[in-house]
Amino acid sequence: MPNHTSSYNNNPLDPEEFRRQGHMIIDFLADYYHDVEKYPVQSQVEPGYLRKCLPKSTPHNPEPIETILQDVQEHIVPGLTHWQSPNFFAYFQCTTATKLETIVVDWLGQMLELPKSFLFSGNGGGVLQGTACEAVLCTIVAARDQMLSQIGRENLIKLVVYASDQTHCAIQKAAQIAGIHPMNFRAIKTSKSTSYALSPDSLRAQICEDVDAGLVPLFLCATVGTTPTAAIDPLESLCAVAKDYGMWVHVDAAYAGSAYICPEFRHFIDGVEGANSFSLNAHKWFLTSLDCCCLWVKDPSALIKSLSTNPEFLRNKASDSKQVVDYKDWQITLTRRFRSLKLWFVLRSYGVANLRSFMRNHVKMANHFEGLVAMDKRFEIVVPTNFAMVCFRILPSALSERVYKNGKLDIVSEEHANEANRKLLESINISGCVFMTHAVVEGVYVIRFAVGATLVEERHVITAWKVVQEHANVMLSTYKPRALLV
Amino acid sequence: MPNHTSSYNNNPLDPEEFRRQGHMIIDFLADYYHDVEKYPVQSQVEPGYLRKCLPKSTPHNPEPIETILQDVQEHIVPGLTHWQSPNFFAYFQCTTATKLETIVVDWLGQMLELPKSFLFSGNGGGVLQGTACEAVLCTIVAARDQMLSQIGRENLIKLVVYASDQTHCAIQKAAQIAGIHPMNFRAIKTSKSTSYALSPDSLRAQICEDVDAGLVPLFLCATVGTTPTAAIDPLESLCAVAKDYGMWVHVDAAYAGSAYICPEFRHFIDGVEGANSFSLNAHKWFLTSLDCCCLWVKDPSALIKSLSTNPEFLRNKASDSKQVVDYKDWQITLTRRFRSLKLWFVLRSYGVANLRSFMRNHVKMANHFEGLVAMDKRFEIVVPTNFAMVCFRILPSALSERVYKNGKLDIVSEEHANEANRKLLESINISGCVFMTHAVVEGVYVIRFAVGATLVEERHVITAWKVVQEHANVMLSTYKPRALLV
Repeated sequence: MPNHTSSYNNNPLDPEEFRRQGHMIIDFLADYYHDVEKYPVQSQVEPGYLRKCLPKSTPHNPEPIETILQDVQEHIVPGLTHWQSPNFFAYFQCTTATKLETIVVDWLGQMLELPKSFLFSGNGGGVLQGTACEAVLCTIVAARDQMLSQIGRENLIKLVVYASDQTHCAIQKAAQIAGIHPMNFRAIKTSKSTSYALSPDSLRAQICEDVDAGLVPLFLCATVGTTPTAAIDPLESLCAVAKDYGMWVHVDAAYAGSAYICPEFRHFIDGVEGANSFSLNAHKWFLTSLDCCCLWVKDPSALIKSLSTNPEFLRNKASDSKQVVDYKDWQITLTRRFRSLKLWFVLRSYGVANLRSFMRNHVKMANHFEGLVAMDKRFEIVVPTNFAMVCFRILPSALSERVYKNGKLDIVSEEHANEANRKLLESINISGCVFMTHAVVEGVYVIRFAVGATLVEERHVITAWKVVQEHANVMLSTYKPRALLV
Repeated sequence: MPNHTSSYNNNPLDPEEFRRQGHMIIDFLADYYHDVEKYPVQSQVEPGYLRKCLPKSTPHNPEPIETILQDVQEHIVPGLTHWQSPNFFAYFQCTTATKLETIVVDWLGQMLELPKSFLFSGNGGGVLQGTACEAVLCTIVAARDQMLSQIGRENLIKLVVYASDQTHCAIQKAAQIAGIHPMNFRAIKTSKSTSYALSPDSLRAQICEDVDAGLVPLFLCATVGTTPTAAIDPLESLCAVAKDYGMWVHVDAAYAGSAYICPEFRHFIDGVEGANSFSLNAHKWFLTSLDCCCLWVKDPSALIKSLSTNPEFLRNKASDSKQVVDYKDWQITLTRRFRSLKLWFVLRSYGVANLRSFMRNHVKMANHFEGLVAMDKRFEIVVPTNFAMVCFRILPSALSERVYKNGKLDIVSEEHANEANRKLLESINISGCVFMTHAVVEGVYVIRFAVGATLVEERHVITAWKVVQEHANVMLSTYKPRALLV
């Protein structure tokens, strides 16, 4: 089907293709409602039937929507308990959703070449949650209870959670919710010298200080692709430090995780085998609509011990718990949406080949943008570009030149540069032509240009740079540092 | 539009109406994608503009989909920052979603006649979360931190959470996640004498015992419409007890909350003004797709103090914090879906009148079913029917008559009755004709018949009862208590 391959490749959200597929899915649903009374209300399939009907891994090439919908009708619908049926007078679990989810997370885990210990086939397993906040909260709670069962619950107040100062605030929030003392969250300082990655030496120094103070190191969140600058924490050496103290290591790959399906990026998560859990937001850069966070853990029983409310049942079934996945005990909420269906549609309708080329295309466009910035002497690339995010700013020197020409000052402070870059971004965003955001690293205000929109093409990136230059021209031509205006 | 009124009223998911509206919405979205480049990427509207464009409350009568979509195009789209735009190179908040959400939760709060102190207009406010688990977790964490700020964090181990033994296990789970000692969750025993409602005397007795043991009462979850039997905890007297100990009271109306928009049911939540928070799952019985849990709180700042990761910012803006709603600080997750849009569609496309008649129709059908059960002497209604849920079972006497006829025994124990009812339900569900579930109250196995499916009509209820009787006939004709078979 070369047509499908090329059309997805060029514009997966082409309005007319979207319209065609959308109408097809509405018709599928309308027909389902029309026939819903004909189905047995409760699923009548054997456990495990679904894995036999579906391929063992994500297809390499895209499959047409018609084929996927046919599989839904033939293999998914018979496994559903029909909540929408007028003969449904109960509340109950939707078992097929669970089966498809175990399949899909294993498919994606294989694409990422996660160690087998994170997959169901290796006694680990994955789950689809809403967001990284939920995923991290679950893992902190599991780590907390595992530790407290050894040292006693009265020591909760001593537990310490570690991350870098570049880590997403979701980690701090999750720690607060889990009852970790707000003073025991460590945002360890990073610097330009490590491109804002967390240094294993800094981590060890902080841990030693805490241990000396009588505290208990609990949890490390390592980020591979941070929000401010897409910095990559070095997993192998960080896991080695954590191991010395028996800490839980979670790897947050919310943004950049999607890129690791490309062999050329996979090395960034070398060492992940030393971690306890790994998460990726498919809704960020993996063409899946909000919300869909994939979490893999090596030891599902640690999650289950903390998140189940039915420990008696678990004690009885401990031996065969690996065959029966009850996802309500793997997450915060008891009710679950059928998230695996949308991820399964993405995996099948794009295929590994097109998903990789989608990521690569964005990375290529970001590199193009980076090249354009580098050619303009007024700007600098603040940190080396990782993945599809460029961090840049107007240089202080570009401002001081202006000020010098007015015959007043020849040095513009970093503070003035920050103010100018903030004004530049504000004027760009207010124009409505493009939209970017910012980060502050080591006191430096940087503009973040993240290529990630599904519809983005080379021409949008080129235009975006023109917009930046135009606004910079206007801003610089009238520039006066605030201090001079007083 | 009398046509709309009647068509929604009779069958809101009529397949052909669903198809028509579905195609219309797909076309709306395809056109949006086609035009997305034309919109300013960042929203360019004034804060607060949306409230001026929309009515002050839910319309009484349904509005056609055409009108609602026109409002989306005219009022909602201009307030969006267009994440799908190819000129979007950022991550940022979707502000219109916030504005619409504050409007929709106030609309629904008014329909429920919640005290003004729970609405934005009364310095409280509502938020749309995923499920009741999340809502309860947020309130427990807020209550926990409020208490610990008074008594010191080292006392976390002493905090106690109370609920009845009929309460959903989501409460226990939330308490565990929040770090409450697993031994400090009290599921207070209820009995048939109070129709399984929590007795204020039992609550007070338990609290006294805990206080004597040096523990600290923290949180009460009162349920108005429990999962097992739709029991209704008496809010007014429970809040009075909680007040004596300075406890936080959360009212869980996950299932039955929807019914309180009908004046004849509203009295069941009289006394809610003494509570701190109230939640309802719109995805349960309010025609809204998964997930959509509405949480209202009297004191949003208690949530924000626990769930924000930006306390400095908050300190600066404390004075005007009521004008700026930042929902990420009202819930577990930072990323948010646009849930208010679907709830807004439900409220407008049904209107208050039809929503009420939808609930009443289900209650009527449940009463019809109850009447059918009551006429069959082999069955009993185990607890009085509340809302649209009937709890019934085969009586031990119906079994003992069978056994007597075989000339062996004339008394069948409760244990045998449980076994027989379990078998009956199993055989009904395996048939695939209808699907019900069960509960165990005070050791008695009851079958739960919940009328709640959107497509359900009188004929389905009548057929369901026939199915029950047929399976009961077969089961009883071959019935032998297990003990006799040994």
